[in-house]
Amino acid sequence: MAVTSTISTSTIDTVKEKARRLGVYSMMSTTAAGSGHPTSCLSAAQLVAGVFFYAMKFDPKNPNSPDGDRFVLSKGHAAPLLYAALAEAGVFPLSRMMTLRQFSSEMEGHPTPLVPGVDAATGSLGQGLSVGAGLAIGAKLDGSSTRVYVLLGDGELAEGQVWEAAAFSGHYKLDNLTAIADINRLGQSEPTMYQHDMEIYRRKFDSEGFDVQVIDGHDVAAVLAALDHAKSTKGRPQAIVACTIKGHGVSFIADKEHWHGKPLSKDELARALQETGTVAPIPPDDGKSYARKSLPKPPDFPPPAAPDYKADAKVATREAYGYALKRLAPVNPHIVAISGDVKNSTFSEIFGDAYPDRFYQGYIAEQNMVSAGVGLAARGRVPFLDTFACFLSRAYDQVRMTAISRASIKLCGSHCGVSIGEDGPSQMALEDLAMFRAVNGSIIFYPSDAVSTERLTEAAARAEGITYIRTSRPKTPIIYSTDEKFPVPGFKVLRKSEKDRATVIGAGITLHEALNAADQLKEQGIAIRVIDLYCVKPIDGDAIAAELKATGGRLVTVEDHFEEGGIGEAVLSALSDAGTAPSKVRRLAIHGMPHSGKPEELIDAFGISARHIVDAVAAIGS
Amino acid sequence: MAVTSTISTSTIDTVKEKARRLGVYSMMSTTAAGSGHPTSCLSAAQLVAGVFFYAMKFDPKNPNSPDGDRFVLSKGHAAPLLYAALAEAGVFPLSRMMTLRQFSSEMEGHPTPLVPGVDAATGSLGQGLSVGAGLAIGAKLDGSSTRVYVLLGDGELAEGQVWEAAAFSGHYKLDNLTAIADINRLGQSEPTMYQHDMEIYRRKFDSEGFDVQVIDGHDVAAVLAALDHAKSTKGRPQAIVACTIKGHGVSFIADKEHWHGKPLSKDELARALQETGTVAPIPPDDGKSYARKSLPKPPDFPPPAAPDYKADAKVATREAYGYALKRLAPVNPHIVAISGDVKNSTFSEIFGDAYPDRFYQGYIAEQNMVSAGVGLAARGRVPFLDTFACFLSRAYDQVRMTAISRASIKLCGSHCGVSIGEDGPSQMALEDLAMFRAVNGSIIFYPSDAVSTERLTEAAARAEGITYIRTSRPKTPIIYSTDEKFPVPGFKVLRKSEKDRATVIGAGITLHEALNAADQLKEQGIAIRVIDLYCVKPIDGDAIAAELKATGGRLVTVEDHFEEGGIGEAVLSALSDAGTAPSKVRRLAIHGMPHSGKPEELIDAFGISARHIVDAVAAIGS
Repeated sequence: MAVTSTISTSTIDTVKEKARRLGVYSMMSTTAAGSGHPTSCLSAAQLVAGVFFYAMKFDPKNPNSPDGDRFVLSKGHAAPLLYAALAEAGVFPLSRMMTLRQFSSEMEGHPTPLVPGVDAATGSLGQGLSVGAGLAIGAKLDGSSTRVYVLLGDGELAEGQVWEAAAFSGHYKLDNLTAIADINRLGQSEPTMYQHDMEIYRRKFDSEGFDVQVIDGHDVAAVLAALDHAKSTKGRPQAIVACTIKGHGVSFIADKEHWHGKPLSKDELARALQETGTVAPIPPDDGKSYARKSLPKPPDFPPPAAPDYKADAKVATREAYGYALKRLAPVNPHIVAISGDVKNSTFSEIFGDAYPDRFYQGYIAEQNMVSAGVGLAARGRVPFLDTFACFLSRAYDQVRMTAISRASIKLCGSHCGVSIGEDGPSQMALEDLAMFRAVNGSIIFYPSDAVSTERLTEAAARAEGITYIRTSRPKTPIIYSTDEKFPVPGFKVLRKSEKDRATVIGAGITLHEALNAADQLKEQGIAIRVIDLYCVKPIDGDAIAAELKATGGRLVTVEDHFEEGGIGEAVLSALSDAGTAPSKVRRLAIHGMPHSGKPEELIDAFGISARHIVDAVAAIGS
Repeated sequence: MAVTSTISTSTIDTVKEKARRLGVYSMMSTTAAGSGHPTSCLSAAQLVAGVFFYAMKFDPKNPNSPDGDRFVLSKGHAAPLLYAALAEAGVFPLSRMMTLRQFSSEMEGHPTPLVPGVDAATGSLGQGLSVGAGLAIGAKLDGSSTRVYVLLGDGELAEGQVWEAAAFSGHYKLDNLTAIADINRLGQSEPTMYQHDMEIYRRKFDSEGFDVQVIDGHDVAAVLAALDHAKSTKGRPQAIVACTIKGHGVSFIADKEHWHGKPLSKDELARALQETGTVAPIPPDDGKSYARKSLPKPPDFPPPAAPDYKADAKVATREAYGYALKRLAPVNPHIVAISGDVKNSTFSEIFGDAYPDRFYQGYIAEQNMVSAGVGLAARGRVPFLDTFACFLSRAYDQVRMTAISRASIKLCGSHCGVSIGEDGPSQMALEDLAMFRAVNGSIIFYPSDAVSTERLTEAAARAEGITYIRTSRPKTPIIYSTDEKFPVPGFKVLRKSEKDRATVIGAGITLHEALNAADQLKEQGIAIRVIDLYCVKPIDGDAIAAELKATGGRLVTVEDHFEEGGIGEAVLSALSDAGTAPSKVRRLAIHGMPHSGKPEELIDAFGISARHIVDAVAAIGS
C-alpha cells in the first residue's frame, strides 16, 4: 500500500498536532482523575486524530447525527482519548474532559451514550465491531452515506465476538465499515498472544473478507492514506491494522509492561510533557452537564391488525411470535430482525419470508447478534433478535452492556424450560428469567397463548430498554379473545371465586397446568385463583398482594425454570416490596438437572404439572 | 496432501463398513425416537468411524480412561452417531443406543458425561474445541501420550468461541489436539455463510497456527491418511477440514435443505436402508442403565498452611485469593489456574509467579477459559479460572453447560459491584449473584475479609460442581482469626445481643458497612445483629430464621448487587423454604444504572452505605 502523495503536508501537520494534543489531554485527564489508561490512549492518538480530524464527516454541533459518520471506541478504556477528540472537535469544552471519572461528570471511566457523539457503551471488550456492523447496516437501510469507524485494541482481538463480527461484516459486504486495529503489543497483564506479528492479523481479517492494510499507526501520512483507501473501497469492509507502541511518545512508559491502566503521577506528567510538548492551560470546569438530553427511543406507530386465531386453535407461542412480527411490519417500518440460525424454530422466518430486506441471518453467533442490535437501535431501528432462550445466555455480557448503552432491543428466546422435551438440558433455558430479571431496566414478557404473544410483541416494539420475550415450544390452546389488552406491568386473573383457597401463579406452559389443576380441584369442590403472570418484570406487588389477601395469603407459584431468580422469587420479592408476604407458600420449580424425555413426562417428573399443583394446594391447607 | 499408500485396503474397507453401520444406526435410532438429527450424523459417519476404529487409542472396557485418547463431539446434535460408535465399539449394547432420547435412558438428545466415554456435555455449539484444549493441556501436564479429537460442525464455526479455542490451542502448541471440521454446507435454517468454500476454512485455521488438511470427508482412505498425518504432526494442533454432504448416502435427503433435526419416517427409513444396506436386527433393550457410576471429583488433599495476616492489616479479598491459591498449591498438586489477562487485578499472578507451570494465560477470551476448565477438570485437574466478575457474564452459557457436564470448576470474579469506583458500570458486576445462583448445583462464596477468602478458596478446591468466589476491589480489615472455620452452608453472626432490634445481613463490602452501622447505632443505644453471609448458596434458611426470630423478625439485607436475584431475594427464598418470612424487611441493593465515582461516593449514592443501614433499621421500627 503506497502512501499517496495527494495529502498535503499542512494537512498531515495539522493532524499530527491534533494527535499530539489528544495524547497530552489523555495524560492530563487521567493524572487529574488519579486512574485510567493513558498508555492505551497514546498508542491510538494518531489513529483517532486521523479519523476525527481528517476522515470523518462529523458535525460537533450535532455529534450523534445520522447524517454524520460514526465512531465506536471498542477499546473503551481509551475513553480519555475519545473525550479529548470530542472536546478538541468542539463538542464540549476541554475543561469538561478534565472532569474524567468524577461522580458528577458524564465523562465516565468507559464511554456511555450519555457522552455526546457516543452511540453505545463500551468497556467490556470485543463488542464494538458488532455495534459498528449494526450501525453500518442501519445506514445502508437508510440509504445514507454514513461511514462507521471502529477502533479496536489488540488485547480484545482475542475475544471470539470480534471474529463473529468480522465474519458478519464480510458476509454482508459492509463497505461502509472500517475497523482500525491498534496493535500496541501489550495487554493488561502481559504481552498479547501475537505481539507485533502484523501478518497474523492481516491473515485473520483477510480470511473474513476484509480489505486489509497494515500500517505504522504513528505515521500520520500513512494513517491518512489508509483512511482514504478505506473510504474508496467498495464491496467489502476494511481493516486498518496499525502497528503501534503503547505509551507512544513518552520514553519512560513507551512499550513498557506494568503501565496498563495506570495514570502518571504529577511529576511523571511533567516529565512526559517535556517530551511531548505542552498545551495551553485548561480553565476550570464550569460544572455544567454536557450529557445528552435524549437518547434514541423506539418510534410510536399505529396499532397493527388484530390477531386472528380461532378460539379452538392450538398454537405455540413461539409461532405466534413470528405472526406478530409479520403483522407489526407494515405499521412499523423500523422493525428489523436477526436470527441466530434458528428462524425455523423461533418462527421469525414468518417475518423474514415476508420482509426479506428487513431480516438478517445472524448465523450461530449470539454475541454478535445482540451487539449488532445495539448498533441498529442507535440508528433508529427496532431490532428483534431471536434464538433459543438458553443460547441468549451466550450473550449475557452483551445484554448487560446493552443496558449501559440505554439501547432499546427486543430479544425473543424460544424453547424455554423442560417442556422442550427430547433435546435435553443443553437446549432448555432454565436460568433465563434470573438472567434477564437482573438486567437494569429490563422488561420480561412470558406469554401463555398466541393472542398474548402477539400483543406483548407489539408492547415490546413500543418499549424502551431491553425487552425479553420468553416463548415456549409446545402448542397451547388460545386463552384470550383477540381484543384483550395486556398492560405493563400486569397479570390476568383467569379463575376467581369468593372462596378461592389459594392463589396459583403460572406463566407459559405452567399456566395451562394451573388451569388444568383448577379444573381437577373444582371437581373436588375446591376453588383456586389462577393468575397468568404474563409480565414477569416489572410486577405490581400491590395488585398481587390484593389477590393473595383474598385467598387467605396462600400462594402457589409454578414455573418451568430453576427456583433461583425465577417467578417464585420475583413474586416473593414484589410482595416484600409491597410490605407483605404470603401466609403459606409452595413454589414449584425445576430442581436438579433435567434430561431428555417427552415434554409431558418431564413436566410431571420435575414437579410442575397439574398433579403437583393440586398436591401443593392440598398441602398448603385452608 | 497425498494419500499415503501404507493403509491397507482391508483396513479401509473395515472402516467403510463401520461408517456405513454408524450411519444406519443413527437413522434407525432417530426414527425410533421420533426426533433427532440423522442428516447431521450422516455427514460425519466416515470421520467418526475413522477416529474410533482406526486412529484412537480406546479401551471400550474403560472408555474414560486417562490412558486412552479422547473424543469430544462438539456438534452435540450428532449424538446418535457418537452413541452408535460407542455401541459398535462395545461400550454398551446396540440395543441401548436404540433408547435414544427416552426419559429412562442415559442416551440423551445431546451427549452428557453420564454416557460412558463422554467427558463433557455438548449441545450448545462452539464449546467442544475449548474442552478439547483443556483435555489436551491436562494430558501434557500428566506427561501422557493421550491425543484429543474434536468433531466440529460448520454451523458452529460461526461461534467466536471456536476461534478463541483455536488461537489458544495454537498458542500453546497443542500438538496432541486434532480438530475435525465437518463442512456439510447446511446450517439449521439455511446454508452456512461459507457453504463449501473450503479455502476460507483452511485460511482461518491456518492463521491460528494449525496444521491444516482439506479432504473429502467421505473418502475413507483420505480420512485415515489425514488422521495419520495429524498424529505425526509435532509442535502444533491440527485441523482436518472435511468437505461433506449433509445426509450423505441417502439420495432423497443428501444435501437437501429443510432436513435439519428431522428424523426419517418409518417408510423413509426403509427407503434409505435400501440405498445404504441394512444391519442385523437389534434386540430389544434390556432396561439396564449403562450410565457412568462415578464422575471425576476433586481429589482430597491435606490442609494448607493457615493464613498469616496481621489482625490490623487491610487486605482486599481479591488479593487474598492469590495468596490462597499459592498456599494451596503445594498441598494440592492438581490445582491449575487460567486468567483472562487480568492476573494482576485478580491477583492470580501470586500463584502464577510461584507456579508458572500450572498457570495459563487465557488472554481476553472468557468463553474459552471456562470450557477449557471443563476439559481440565475431566482430566482430574482442579481448575481455578479468574476474571473480573462482570466478564464472567461473557461465559454464562459455558457455565450453564459446565453444570450439565457435572464438572467441578472454580470461578473467581473480582471487582464486584459499585465499590470498584471510577471505572464505571461496564466493569461492575451487579448481576453475577443472580447469574450463578440460577446454575444448578452451584456454590457461591462471597468473602468479606482475607482470612475467609483463603478458607473459602480452600473449600472451593474441595467442592464438587461449580463454585463461584466473588471478590472485591477495595482493601478491607481482617475480621476473623486465622483458625476460624467456614462451614458450607453457613454464615457468621458478628454482632449479637439479647435485645437486637433487627438482623442485618451483608457480605463483602456491605458487611463492613453493616459493622460500621452497628457501631453508629450502638452509640444511639440500639443493638443490631450482624450476619456475614459468606456463603450465598446454599443458604441454611432454618438457621437464618432462628436469628431472625430473635430479632423480632425484622430483617435488613444490604448488597453491592442489583436487587433481582441477589442476597435479599436469596434470603427471602431460603426463609420461605424454611416456612417463614420476615415480619418487616428492608432490602438495600443497587437500583438504577450506576456510574463512575469514588467507591465510597458510589456506595453511599446507591444506598448501601452504613448511613442507609442505620436509616433502614430506624424505618423498620421495633
